[in-house]
Amino acid sequence: MIARLRKFIPVLDWGRTYNAAAFSNDLVAAVIVTIMLIPQSLAYALLAGLPPEAGIYASIVPIILYAIFGTSRALAVGPVAVVSLLTASAVGQVAEQGTAGYAVAALTLALLSGGFLLTLGILRLGFLANFLSHPVIAGFITASGILIACSQLKHILGVEAGGHTLPEMIGSLVTHLGETNLITLAIGAGAIAFLFWVRKGLKPLLRSLGCGPKLSDLITKAGPVAAVVLTTLITWAFVLSSQGVSIVGEVPQSLPPLTMPGLSPGLIADLAIPAVLISIIGFVESVSVAQTLAAKKRQHIDPDQELIGLGAANLGAAFTGGYPVTGGFARSVVNFDAGAETPAAGAYTAVGLAIAAVALTPLVYFLPKATLAATIIVAVLSLVDLSILKKTWGYSKSDFSAVAATIVLTLLLGVEIGVATGVAISVLLHLYKTSRPHVAEIGLVPGTQHFRNINRHDVETDPTVLMLRVDESLYFANARFLETLILERVTEGCAIRNVVLMFSAVNAVDYSALESLEAINERLTDMNVGFHLSEVKGPVMDRLQTSHLLQHLNGRVFLSQYDAWVAVSGRPVEPVGRAMAAAC
Amino acid sequence: MIARLRKFIPVLDWGRTYNAAAFSNDLVAAVIVTIMLIPQSLAYALLAGLPPEAGIYASIVPIILYAIFGTSRALAVGPVAVVSLLTASAVGQVAEQGTAGYAVAALTLALLSGGFLLTLGILRLGFLANFLSHPVIAGFITASGILIACSQLKHILGVEAGGHTLPEMIGSLVTHLGETNLITLAIGAGAIAFLFWVRKGLKPLLRSLGCGPKLSDLITKAGPVAAVVLTTLITWAFVLSSQGVSIVGEVPQSLPPLTMPGLSPGLIADLAIPAVLISIIGFVESVSVAQTLAAKKRQHIDPDQELIGLGAANLGAAFTGGYPVTGGFARSVVNFDAGAETPAAGAYTAVGLAIAAVALTPLVYFLPKATLAATIIVAVLSLVDLSILKKTWGYSKSDFSAVAATIVLTLLLGVEIGVATGVAISVLLHLYKTSRPHVAEIGLVPGTQHFRNINRHDVETDPTVLMLRVDESLYFANARFLETLILERVTEGCAIRNVVLMFSAVNAVDYSALESLEAINERLTDMNVGFHLSEVKGPVMDRLQTSHLLQHLNGRVFLSQYDAWVAVSGRPVEPVGRAMAAAC
Repeated sequence: MIARLRKFIPVLDWGRTYNAAAFSNDLVAAVIVTIMLIPQSLAYALLAGLPPEAGIYASIVPIILYAIFGTSRALAVGPVAVVSLLTASAVGQVAEQGTAGYAVAALTLALLSGGFLLTLGILRLGFLANFLSHPVIAGFITASGILIACSQLKHILGVEAGGHTLPEMIGSLVTHLGETNLITLAIGAGAIAFLFWVRKGLKPLLRSLGCGPKLSDLITKAGPVAAVVLTTLITWAFVLSSQGVSIVGEVPQSLPPLTMPGLSPGLIADLAIPAVLISIIGFVESVSVAQTLAAKKRQHIDPDQELIGLGAANLGAAFTGGYPVTGGFARSVVNFDAGAETPAAGAYTAVGLAIAAVALTPLVYFLPKATLAATIIVAVLSLVDLSILKKTWGYSKSDFSAVAATIVLTLLLGVEIGVATGVAISVLLHLYKTSRPHVAEIGLVPGTQHFRNINRHDVETDPTVLMLRVDESLYFANARFLETLILERVTEGCAIRNVVLMFSAVNAVDYSALESLEAINERLTDMNVGFHLSEVKGPVMDRLQTSHLLQHLNGRVFLSQYDAWVAVSGRPVEPVGRAMAAAC
Repeated sequence: MIARLRKFIPVLDWGRTYNAAAFSNDLVAAVIVTIMLIPQSLAYALLAGLPPEAGIYASIVPIILYAIFGTSRALAVGPVAVVSLLTASAVGQVAEQGTAGYAVAALTLALLSGGFLLTLGILRLGFLANFLSHPVIAGFITASGILIACSQLKHILGVEAGGHTLPEMIGSLVTHLGETNLITLAIGAGAIAFLFWVRKGLKPLLRSLGCGPKLSDLITKAGPVAAVVLTTLITWAFVLSSQGVSIVGEVPQSLPPLTMPGLSPGLIADLAIPAVLISIIGFVESVSVAQTLAAKKRQHIDPDQELIGLGAANLGAAFTGGYPVTGGFARSVVNFDAGAETPAAGAYTAVGLAIAAVALTPLVYFLPKATLAATIIVAVLSLVDLSILKKTWGYSKSDFSAVAATIVLTLLLGVEIGVATGVAISVLLHLYKTSRPHVAEIGLVPGTQHFRNINRHDVETDPTVLMLRVDESLYFANARFLETLILERVTEGCAIRNVVLMFSAVNAVDYSALESLEAINERLTDMNVGFHLSEVKGPVMDRLQTSHLLQHLNGRVFLSQYDAWVAVSGRPVEPVGRAMAAAC
């Protein structure tokens, strides 16, 4: 009972052995992560189309709930770029940015997403996330990165522009290009240049000045904080807000408020599909970050429990003024590198952010939105990885098609259609590939009991025996293929008196395939041709025995292909002892 | 060039060797089929909601076009029950039965269906039909049989009723039960009883009277013609049409007219999905009939060319007053049994039907619709086969779920939703099954070089080596499963120093799985555990060599599992000579 409870509430497990050393490590990590999260949270809220405080609120209660229910020791939960983009896209379809309805819809999205994740976790349905193939995810993340960067250009230029797809965004930006605010552009472009330099140039500099690799890394990660402080000071000193520079402005000084998501059936119906999409994409991202970090310390991540942890975090966000959250890559890596040992580090980060929400928000009054946009742009451009196109092109054209379609459709038609089409294409291509399985005609390697592809090897064959090795499980998509193939071969090769199917690579036979095998048997019987199987695996044989196939089979089931050859070929056979054992 | 043309126009092939003997056989078959087709064509037109002549028109030009382009020697193309039901369901959604718009929409449906089939055939995409699994087809045909029988009860009762789903039909029948015309009911019920007797009782009787099996069969098949003649005479003699008995009435005496399908974009959009559905279901049915008959004479069917033949037949129907057609089971079997040798038999049937359309149509003026309904009911009840539920239940629960869902949803929500859900369920269940592949932990069978499941056999193992045999191709749906499984095993078994994956049953590795293998390699490297592969098949190895996996692999790729065991296990190894060859 206790063990069961511990499985569902991991804090009961690691909490028992918590000590002073872990506390001190966790606290240090929390301070570092808090400093990094303040600008990031504000920026992602801007990306999601929400007021800046929503980003901070979305980082407080969710982090604590994840610390209780999650299994990763280092994962940092909160707003992330891709989920913020998806939020903007989904909520933008039901409400106008800046209205109260928009914020309420974002809460509803978090509620639905949390409920969906929690349900999947309780039903242990985490495997559903597997239907998102790696190429589709990679393509989607890349396209999202491009979309996000483009969506922020309006803040860099200081113009009002919109759009949810690349052509819309570019069109809108071009239309408003004349209204560019040059001071805003200077701040934004300066911040981008500074942040890129911090990323590429600062670390080598620090290392050459004798800093350790970890410290250099941490200082580099503080780049956005420096940009925020610098540009805020400049804007305040020169009162640039009166020159048309957009600033964050007043942010309420408050702990996360208690909020109520919208629950109207219409709103729920409109947001249900986007919520499922956000949940699955967030989950996949989060688990892959968590597994990467856990492996480094030989720790274990339970994906189904992760669903519960992320579900709880999103429900928390829904009732405390946040929006959908998940485990973020950058923040989790910082947390890990800074030495976080337990999820308690997350809880201390939450306390740090709560203090910030109450005490520090007046300090960001003069923070230019262009700076936040710059931090987003620099962060997301690291997500853009077009090399996936080259890699998949070299490895497999069908994976390439899935990536290319996902990228193109996400950019042109938006995130939801892009990812949905990507999933549909992967599934169809997989079915297509397995619908025409590799079937090798085989012959005996002389002097052995081995059988090999007649096209690749010098082997003995017998014109009266057709021996085929099927290199795929048999199921509905390829059942008819096999039927057609065998009938074609037999009608062409008039000498054929026996057909032997070697089942060594057949891991399963579904009911459609069973019926096809029965049809092959009937048709070969009509043609007066024997039909035999060989090397059928244990589990497949168990299942075939519950059917009538084996009773009606006009031939036999042989333990080994060699046994079959000895029995049906007209060739003289040397006495080579007992035939090979079956394959399983 | 000629050979290529012959492939696309099979008549050029068989036509060259056509002789007097074949002509006489074909002619006899054509006469028999024509007699059988007249009532059947009228009945199916009624089922499709069209005037009776549409059924005859749909049998003339399409048969000729199929004879030119199709590959089956015995297939008889024309209206069939399931496609007629689908037509009624699809066209009923865009037009009112009995209106001119209804007939035009049916032409459009045939046009779209013909165009779709032809496109698939030219692009050689016949494999798409494979996504309809046998259980889904069986469930759909059974549910359609029930729906069709129910839809005809109104004609037996002589009432006006409607509905496209079982609850709608039953509700409508119950509401109108009071209006039952007793004379109609007597004719209809009598015809049903007569036809059932012909089916079950007449054949044994004829056999016991000394008739040969083929002749008995043919006489039995003429049952509907007898019913038509008898009830027409009775209705004419007693002027029952004045007693409220619905009769076929005036049928134009004409050859098939030249007709123009409706081409408005709205109509095409509404009928596109149903047309795809009708095409695929018709194609699957037709090919399976054609293959069954061809196998009996060791002849060959080319599914892609069949698409072209059926596509041409449907285009023909669209421009000559018909509606969607396909190869029918009953008529094709009669054609085959009557001795048809070439598709020319079909052409002669077309001539016979053309004569009937011009000369015989006045004779069916007094034919009661109840008789036609009775022939439909008796014909389709043979399609209803609920034993598929029992068979799949015994063989595989997931196939059972697909059948059950298809039957229930087709009956309750209609044919289109039923079949679409069935397909979706089969695909999802297939992905689900392959997403949790069978992975066996294996050990060495003592004294051999064979490795077997440690749970099924007494084998040698080594606590420092984890050896897993993966019994499934690796692709996106199961890539993460394997990743999680291996990390879980390794974090639990602290002694593990090496992991060997035996790939003997892995027929493919897609890009997602490749990335998972790379991730497993990285994580095992982080844990200081060696990662090795063994018995990788040729095509899989070829592909892996185009990636970076093998360069980064912290362990080795072994030709055989035994080589791997010798290299990484700490156990003493007896000298047993050269290790087994790789699996491919």
